[in-house]
Amino acid sequence: MTVTLPAGFEAAGIAAGLKRSGALDLAVVVNRGPSHAAAAVFTSNRAKANPVIWSQQVIQDGVASAIVLNSGGANCFTGPEGFQVTHRTAEAAASALGVSAGDVLVCSTGLIGEQLDGEVVEEGVLSAVDRLGADGGEDAARAIMTTDTTPKTAVVQVDGWRIGGMAKGAGMLAPGLATMLVVLTTDADLPAAELDAALRQATRVTFDRLDSDGCMSTNDQVTLMASGASGVVPDAATFTEALTTACRDLALQLQADAEGASHDIAIEVVGAVSEDDAVEVARSVARNNLFKAAIFGNDPNWGRVLAAIGTTKAPFDPYLVDVSMNGVRVCHAGRPDQPRELVDLAPRATHVLIELHAGEASATIWTNDLTHDYVHENSAYAS
Amino acid sequence: MTVTLPAGFEAAGIAAGLKRSGALDLAVVVNRGPSHAAAAVFTSNRAKANPVIWSQQVIQDGVASAIVLNSGGANCFTGPEGFQVTHRTAEAAASALGVSAGDVLVCSTGLIGEQLDGEVVEEGVLSAVDRLGADGGEDAARAIMTTDTTPKTAVVQVDGWRIGGMAKGAGMLAPGLATMLVVLTTDADLPAAELDAALRQATRVTFDRLDSDGCMSTNDQVTLMASGASGVVPDAATFTEALTTACRDLALQLQADAEGASHDIAIEVVGAVSEDDAVEVARSVARNNLFKAAIFGNDPNWGRVLAAIGTTKAPFDPYLVDVSMNGVRVCHAGRPDQPRELVDLAPRATHVLIELHAGEASATIWTNDLTHDYVHENSAYAS
Repeated sequence: MTVTLPAGFEAAGIAAGLKRSGALDLAVVVNRGPSHAAAAVFTSNRAKANPVIWSQQVIQDGVASAIVLNSGGANCFTGPEGFQVTHRTAEAAASALGVSAGDVLVCSTGLIGEQLDGEVVEEGVLSAVDRLGADGGEDAARAIMTTDTTPKTAVVQVDGWRIGGMAKGAGMLAPGLATMLVVLTTDADLPAAELDAALRQATRVTFDRLDSDGCMSTNDQVTLMASGASGVVPDAATFTEALTTACRDLALQLQADAEGASHDIAIEVVGAVSEDDAVEVARSVARNNLFKAAIFGNDPNWGRVLAAIGTTKAPFDPYLVDVSMNGVRVCHAGRPDQPRELVDLAPRATHVLIELHAGEASATIWTNDLTHDYVHENSAYAS
Repeated sequence: MTVTLPAGFEAAGIAAGLKRSGALDLAVVVNRGPSHAAAAVFTSNRAKANPVIWSQQVIQDGVASAIVLNSGGANCFTGPEGFQVTHRTAEAAASALGVSAGDVLVCSTGLIGEQLDGEVVEEGVLSAVDRLGADGGEDAARAIMTTDTTPKTAVVQVDGWRIGGMAKGAGMLAPGLATMLVVLTTDADLPAAELDAALRQATRVTFDRLDSDGCMSTNDQVTLMASGASGVVPDAATFTEALTTACRDLALQLQADAEGASHDIAIEVVGAVSEDDAVEVARSVARNNLFKAAIFGNDPNWGRVLAAIGTTKAPFDPYLVDVSMNGVRVCHAGRPDQPRELVDLAPRATHVLIELHAGEASATIWTNDLTHDYVHENSAYAS
């Protein structure tokens, strides 16, 4: 049921013809209300796609009636013509739904620097609106896939209200916020400001902690829409916790489907002076190609972990640091500890624990290994 | 002739037994004077190898009589025992050469986190000192190789004086300063302060602009030793220029031998507000795995260039940026320009020109593509 599990939402996913393969490539999710409160967070990349520029305007008043998402083209670096296609997308949906274009969010994903055909998009929007239904969530989740191998959906059910979600993303996956698109829906009744606060808190410790390949997208957008149709007003902490659960579920599905990856790596840093330090240290390891290639080779090369940490500004003493891999402490106090041979890196799930012994703060970054398949998929993407 | 071309220098490279393969693995370069002025720059990684910690102390007085370099082990994260091996290395060389251990620099390269055998190193040093000669430069250059496929040497001859150099480095190559070791010699007669100034100026625009894989080493060291044996005192500008030429020559040899690479990519940024901005923009592209994988696939994917630039703090307007690849402007004013099909990325030498149109400053970063062979070599390094 995905984004259509919460009451008040309908969705559709159709093949508009944007993907040469003929696969589903355009989704519409509509909030039938009674409330139309919404919040969104966007890529912090300064090179932003046209739909991001548009949606940032739409969300300013905290109101959204619908969101249109297409795969088959990122509509990024396509100039004023590209922006017109985004505008036309919103207008088409607004007209068909009887709402204001200023309340229609737009998301796009695919290759950067190629024009989307506005005619094809417009016809697709009309066709999708025709097929909207409470059973359309699964098709919508499929329609936003690019190199994703599976659709990603999540639901959280709390007393009397629900959260539904869908996500896509497999590469360019280092949300600051990746060509990651996420739509979350809820039938809880919360105003836009509370939705925004909850969304920022949830994404900060979920999507923002995902760093598959260090490459920040131009198109990332995480949107939360609330219909209020349950009539329930949850307290902020309960809602934020449920939303965080849904976001973490989707983030881990993104990690598990990252292009070419053979390991899902959780890099947990403990004993940092601050949470920001812990994130910086974990991210420096997550972005180190030598470390990532070593994990691909099932090589518990902790020297590369320490070399990566050494490039950060986080306070630590190299001769206090412990490093464990899948439960085996291979480095103690900056020196060799247990034999590398004891570490079993065969499982896909990989846990790297870095104990800085500098403070009390901690954080985990989720990343992937650097593999032949990653290189292959990303050297062939445009072809 | 390499580091032994300048008058006053002798060198040797021998097989001490540190490499299981039995290849050359220990080099000594001795400055016979009359001057013993020296300067060095080191990795800015805060996790530093024992020989770096030692050499930073040695160089403080601007005097060095000799340098001992070993491959077959980085002597990094090996604790106090590891530092004792470095100390013992310097003592052995000092004793055999009749100089002070405080004037003997030490460099190591190889795997991090494994102890070097002090006995083997000491015997190797004595054996190398026995074989010192003016014809030892080539063997010395071979003895410092790890995954390098060829030795790297350079010479610059100016009126009456010379600069010789050798370098190693193939991976973990993002000098801030990489497991890059460089020894430069000159028979010019310059005091340590002038050598230091010239070395910092030269490395800033050469080794510091090399960023093969974004991974900063724990062992980088670039050392310059002057014998004064020519009796010539060149002016600072002339010397710096010659030194920069030697450093650039070696840096480009490092790039050409980078592990698994199939393209040598020069990323030239022009029209930046400041040189620092130009470096930040070029480096953000150099470190983008998606861009690097695209170049491996001969795919002129300029969208990935713009996505990378967008993550920087450098002032620019995405809708003014031009991107050219091997002479074909594929992006003009942030939009598609010439067809991608016109770009020929088959040659190893690749030129990416980014015109920001924000100012007058420029810089070039040299990097490599992300290939199957890079992943393979770096997943198998420890085995």
